[in-house]
Amino acid sequence: MKSNLMNMLEARKGEIVQIRRHLHENPELSFKEEKTAQYIIDFYKGKGVSIQTNVGNGLGIIVTIEGGKPGKTIGLRADFDALPITEETEVPFRSKNEGVMHACGHDGHTAYLLVLADCINELKDSLSGTIKIIHQHAEETPPGGAKSMMESGALDELDAIFGIHLFPSHPAGVVGYRGGYSMAGRTYFKLAIKGVGGHGSSPHMANDAIVAGAHFVTAVQTVISRRLNPFDMGVVTIGSFDGKGSFNVIKDRIEIEGDVRYMTAETQQLIDKEIHRIVKGIETEFDVQCELTYVPDYPPLYNDPELTEFVKNSLESMNDKEIEQVVEFPVFSGSEDFAYYAEKIPGCFFYIGCKPKGVEKAYFNHHPKFDIDEDALLIASKSVAQVVCRFYEWN
Amino acid sequence: MKSNLMNMLEARKGEIVQIRRHLHENPELSFKEEKTAQYIIDFYKGKGVSIQTNVGNGLGIIVTIEGGKPGKTIGLRADFDALPITEETEVPFRSKNEGVMHACGHDGHTAYLLVLADCINELKDSLSGTIKIIHQHAEETPPGGAKSMMESGALDELDAIFGIHLFPSHPAGVVGYRGGYSMAGRTYFKLAIKGVGGHGSSPHMANDAIVAGAHFVTAVQTVISRRLNPFDMGVVTIGSFDGKGSFNVIKDRIEIEGDVRYMTAETQQLIDKEIHRIVKGIETEFDVQCELTYVPDYPPLYNDPELTEFVKNSLESMNDKEIEQVVEFPVFSGSEDFAYYAEKIPGCFFYIGCKPKGVEKAYFNHHPKFDIDEDALLIASKSVAQVVCRFYEWN
Amino acid sequence: MKSNLMNMLEARKGEIVQIRRHLHENPELSFKEEKTAQYIIDFYKGKGVSIQTNVGNGLGIIVTIEGGKPGKTIGLRADFDALPITEETEVPFRSKNEGVMHACGHDGHTAYLLVLADCINELKDSLSGTIKIIHQHAEETPPGGAKSMMESGALDELDAIFGIHLFPSHPAGVVGYRGGYSMAGRTYFKLAIKGVGGHGSSPHMANDAIVAGAHFVTAVQTVISRRLNPFDMGVVTIGSFDGKGSFNVIKDRIEIEGDVRYMTAETQQLIDKEIHRIVKGIETEFDVQCELTYVPDYPPLYNDPELTEFVKNSLESMNDKEIEQVVEFPVFSGSEDFAYYAEKIPGCFFYIGCKPKGVEKAYFNHHPKFDIDEDALLIASKSVAQVVCRFYEWN
Amino acid sequence: MKSNLMNMLEARKGEIVQIRRHLHENPELSFKEEKTAQYIIDFYKGKGVSIQTNVGNGLGIIVTIEGGKPGKTIGLRADFDALPITEETEVPFRSKNEGVMHACGHDGHTAYLLVLADCINELKDSLSGTIKIIHQHAEETPPGGAKSMMESGALDELDAIFGIHLFPSHPAGVVGYRGGYSMAGRTYFKLAIKGVGGHGSSPHMANDAIVAGAHFVTAVQTVISRRLNPFDMGVVTIGSFDGKGSFNVIKDRIEIEGDVRYMTAETQQLIDKEIHRIVKGIETEFDVQCELTYVPDYPPLYNDPELTEFVKNSLESMNDKEIEQVVEFPVFSGSEDFAYYAEKIPGCFFYIGCKPKGVEKAYFNHHPKFDIDEDALLIASKSVAQVVCRFYEWN
Repeated sequence: MKSNLMNMLEARKGEIVQIRRHLHENPELSFKEEKTAQYIIDFYKGKGVSIQTNVGNGLGIIVTIEGGKPGKTIGLRADFDALPITEETEVPFRSKNEGVMHACGHDGHTAYLLVLADCINELKDSLSGTIKIIHQHAEETPPGGAKSMMESGALDELDAIFGIHLFPSHPAGVVGYRGGYSMAGRTYFKLAIKGVGGHGSSPHMANDAIVAGAHFVTAVQTVISRRLNPFDMGVVTIGSFDGKGSFNVIKDRIEIEGDVRYMTAETQQLIDKEIHRIVKGIETEFDVQCELTYVPDYPPLYNDPELTEFVKNSLESMNDKEIEQVVEFPVFSGSEDFAYYAEKIPGCFFYIGCKPKGVEKAYFNHHPKFDIDEDALLIASKSVAQVVCRFYEWN
Repeated sequence: MKSNLMNMLEARKGEIVQIRRHLHENPELSFKEEKTAQYIIDFYKGKGVSIQTNVGNGLGIIVTIEGGKPGKTIGLRADFDALPITEETEVPFRSKNEGVMHACGHDGHTAYLLVLADCINELKDSLSGTIKIIHQHAEETPPGGAKSMMESGALDELDAIFGIHLFPSHPAGVVGYRGGYSMAGRTYFKLAIKGVGGHGSSPHMANDAIVAGAHFVTAVQTVISRRLNPFDMGVVTIGSFDGKGSFNVIKDRIEIEGDVRYMTAETQQLIDKEIHRIVKGIETEFDVQCELTYVPDYPPLYNDPELTEFVKNSLESMNDKEIEQVVEFPVFSGSEDFAYYAEKIPGCFFYIGCKPKGVEKAYFNHHPKFDIDEDALLIASKSVAQVVCRFYEWN
Repeated sequence: MKSNLMNMLEARKGEIVQIRRHLHENPELSFKEEKTAQYIIDFYKGKGVSIQTNVGNGLGIIVTIEGGKPGKTIGLRADFDALPITEETEVPFRSKNEGVMHACGHDGHTAYLLVLADCINELKDSLSGTIKIIHQHAEETPPGGAKSMMESGALDELDAIFGIHLFPSHPAGVVGYRGGYSMAGRTYFKLAIKGVGGHGSSPHMANDAIVAGAHFVTAVQTVISRRLNPFDMGVVTIGSFDGKGSFNVIKDRIEIEGDVRYMTAETQQLIDKEIHRIVKGIETEFDVQCELTYVPDYPPLYNDPELTEFVKNSLESMNDKEIEQVVEFPVFSGSEDFAYYAEKIPGCFFYIGCKPKGVEKAYFNHHPKFDIDEDALLIASKSVAQVVCRFYEWN
Repeated sequence: MKSNLMNMLEARKGEIVQIRRHLHENPELSFKEEKTAQYIIDFYKGKGVSIQTNVGNGLGIIVTIEGGKPGKTIGLRADFDALPITEETEVPFRSKNEGVMHACGHDGHTAYLLVLADCINELKDSLSGTIKIIHQHAEETPPGGAKSMMESGALDELDAIFGIHLFPSHPAGVVGYRGGYSMAGRTYFKLAIKGVGGHGSSPHMANDAIVAGAHFVTAVQTVISRRLNPFDMGVVTIGSFDGKGSFNVIKDRIEIEGDVRYMTAETQQLIDKEIHRIVKGIETEFDVQCELTYVPDYPPLYNDPELTEFVKNSLESMNDKEIEQVVEFPVFSGSEDFAYYAEKIPGCFFYIGCKPKGVEKAYFNHHPKFDIDEDALLIASKSVAQVVCRFYEWN
């Protein structure tokens, strides 16, 4: 059965590429992926699958493939939104939607999964279990689509979830994995400090918000230097200190904006608590009013270690000439809303090398010149197929 | 002779008022006081005085009245520029020059001095010495006119210099004095701190200019708290901390602007040296590049104590029913470019109460509703006349 | 009557000196001045005055001289304690009490006042009012004697109070005065910061009290640099930062000790409030426990301006050949518990020059070689006599 | 041959234990291990091995076992010094040297290695290569013995070096490994800051060393929070801030002591450079004199990844019923001077579980009640034997 599936995928390699090019030409921004969603829905028409649309806070789609026999339920997820970037590649199928670009490879994610889903569907009678194909909207823009799709309840019964990402850091043929916390979580915060304005020559009649802000910046360094386990990763960056004013007028109000990164939920909670505490302290210490907006973005991505070991072993035992290397990837400081699934369900998000051939160093994801080796698409589909077959012992 | 002079001034009280109103109606901004300067020049036409025009960096005018006998040389100074303020008073002679207003009383300063100069000129045969009437442009806008008029050399031989300011803090009839350092000096500075920009999640690849700036703000507090004699006055205000950026991007460059105040030249030098030193330290400490623009404005005003005692005694012995009270004034945190004269020449700058009658609390100088009791003009002229008469023992 | 009094004092000049030498030879520490108090009590024996002993928290003595006619009541105060200093002068009457010395001139204060009191007492029939002679213990050691003597109620009815201090900054013959706030107030504080100790390599398991303390030191600078009126005097010095420990152990507890100075009650209150606030802020900001002991010492000394003007005029009109100069003194950063009287009663504390003859620069008060020109004692007695006579119009 | 070796070791298990107990009873402090060294020397007497004594800066011993055939050269290292700790165990062979204790297991390290060396020596004819047995003095006390033994040149020709440590975190039967940086490096520093002392009320006459020190503490936090790669481990702890003084005297000098930790040589260099830079900045910023003593201790321990993989595989393939588990250990924040060998030679330092039987949680190394399960000694000898056999393919 597995060799059937693999053969079917190989036979449809051209179709995968074609779908990807179509999507690449027609990118749509997060939460506005109407044509893309319709394209996906149309793809499944007449294929005898159950399909849910408008799942979550946007255009999420869940396709349910029921196997012939009962068994576990897994999810396979691909995201389908694009970015507000003006494409600068020279490919013939470059974006027709000026200012919008599939610069993160979600076109490829969707293309491989559509065809894989279709193949599995054709073979489903021999499948002992259920597979949910998750076409997710809006990965690029917080709050993202994943959180709301989880909250919709439609994925409650999943036993495991898998997803992949195309990365041009490695050539097609390299497949990467990493167990445990693998991609960073992020929080945005804004702190408005309100003192009392006044004349520069009379500080005692005013209450200097810039001085209070400077002390906050200084104090917040200690969260990383003294509160964080030195073996853990954490960052607090003050990216903006908006205290522009007149040289001889004491500022009544400043606004600070910051970025927090972490690799674990524990660190996320620690930094959250500490920043709130420091702000409260500054408020008293300088007799100012502080307004803190603290908005956690995607959590750190946690790949279930056992499931990741399983994925790694599955990939290593593929005996597919196209899968040349299975390597452990380093942690990434980037974020990914697949993390919301993996918070609740044992999940494994792994990586498919896609560096264009003949290129020394590829343009990375989100670059206007981002490009992929389309051979990676078949590799993606086969890798996920292998994981599915091993999961269901579908030999 | 003194009584002659006083009588002449009383007789011309109406003319003083009229001149003041004319000037009030036709205010001109600093360095652009062309019509005002011409008006002054015209006033002296045919009066047999020596007149220098375009003195200094603008339209300064020096009128020399040679007495009949040799003696000391003194200067009497009045400024004649106006402010970029839209007048909001209801006086019939309100500004015809929209957006410009004599809101600091320089119209009155000029009016009284023109008439006083004319009267002295008429009596000059009996004067043993020389009086330089200094009509100064551009007091309101640094670098001001005084510095350049001093540097022109035209005032090199002065033995003393006097000036007055109308202040509505006290009613007409009150004349104020203060010896020693009496009005604050001021310095403007701008500090650009250049680090290295970068991604918010990778502080080690960047060099955070905001953190360096925060440490500067914190460190510069010690100039006042630890370096300044606690009995001396000094202020360092950071009025602007321009570090606006993106929350998740490490700032490569910030700009800080500040205001320094002091009552003595020693404090001015102390703070100057300390801020430069701290900036140099921050540069090393945080491996950033600092560009410090440090621009001393008007120095603190130093009234020669002996000369001020002389002025005080002169005023106290006037026996003029209009001069009801001679009081010591507190120090002011405002600045005045008369200070440049008083740095080099024994000088006394004193104060003429001008609070409008029937008003509880007057609008202060620079307010759009600033107004004066015009009786103060005669008092100004008589007060200065008295000082002149006593100086020359011109009884 | 005044000339009677002055003549009597001149006649007893030798006795004043003798008393002073006796006291100088027998100095006693604050709160332990038993023999000195007895000496004073003995002095008044048989003189028909009312005498209260053990007033306040120590050995304070109040002698009441009722005039023949009713009138106002004033206090004349002299302190009588000595210092824990080993005398290093070569005077024949040097301290016989090893390690204790009248190094602040209180021996002289007491000597002149005893004789002056006796003389006034002899003349009291012609006096219209009541004079309270206040022999105060324990000026040198907080909480001092003054506060408790005031609180005893024994001085409730005073209309005015006068005191003097011998200062060798000026020669005998110079008498000094200063109206308003004239000597600094002082507060001692101790701040214990308790965090959580731990191993140097594991800051996250501990809570670093040194870092919290460093932030307190930095933040407290802003009390002076930003909260204090720049024209006011204030100092916050951290004299001790006791955080000694092992280099590789995170300190659980540090102790900071500080010294606060101010010239007015307003500044005292301001700094008190601000330091308490900052400590509270630090507590929250760094999640530490702070224990602040804040002990105001003597308040700033406020000389009633009118009373001081009266003293000045009285002294200037003495026509005594020995009083060569009456000068305004600068403010002192030292403290004096006469301030407690002057908080409640119009008071004037003035200064008697006592620089030893032939000395370029005298050893100042509290120096082991402190010495006085004993001519200053008669001058002290006459100066106070003059003030008394003028106060009661006792001509 | 390997089974020969293993059998020999098993047969001499009792002897290993006996040697260990002898050493345990007779502990000696670092650099003073005279009897221990003599004991080791005596052990090898008559065994036909080449022996070097007094190697390095102390009593280091190198025993060279030349195999029958040429081949690679490896080192096996065990340390033999004890700690200044008063033993609190109840074992019959407790320390006879009051105040000194083998509380870190070096007695066991030496015991197993002596017997292993002896066994290998007996079998050396069939060995293709050379084995250097390194008995190292003074591991516990910086600068340690390893650095100087390396510098002696006696180990120049080593192709690989192995060492083990007994840890009671795991029971006997667990053997641990970790590749790459595995134990922390450490640096001690002392910073003396010299300002100018003075009276608490006159900060302008002094230069406050406490304030400068507080700014150093605040600034040094940024080394970790902003300079260090957030994925790297680094700690800067200020363990001591010695600024004890009098509350009303401005401190002229303070002394700060700190502890730096890092897992890589790169981080070591980074923090070194940054702290030096900050100190230089503080010096200028606060016009103080700084004296920085910066003493790197043992570097981070780097286990050669390939060699560690080889060790792991060797251990996993032992098929010895006593080796129950081979596990990856976490990084340790402790330090070890084996790191000096591993800086120059591919090295692997691995871990032997030795938790006493029946104990829930063992007292850790350096605790006065530290104890081991002596079964771990045979396991240590067999584990190292296995590595040696595999290295030389000595089947």
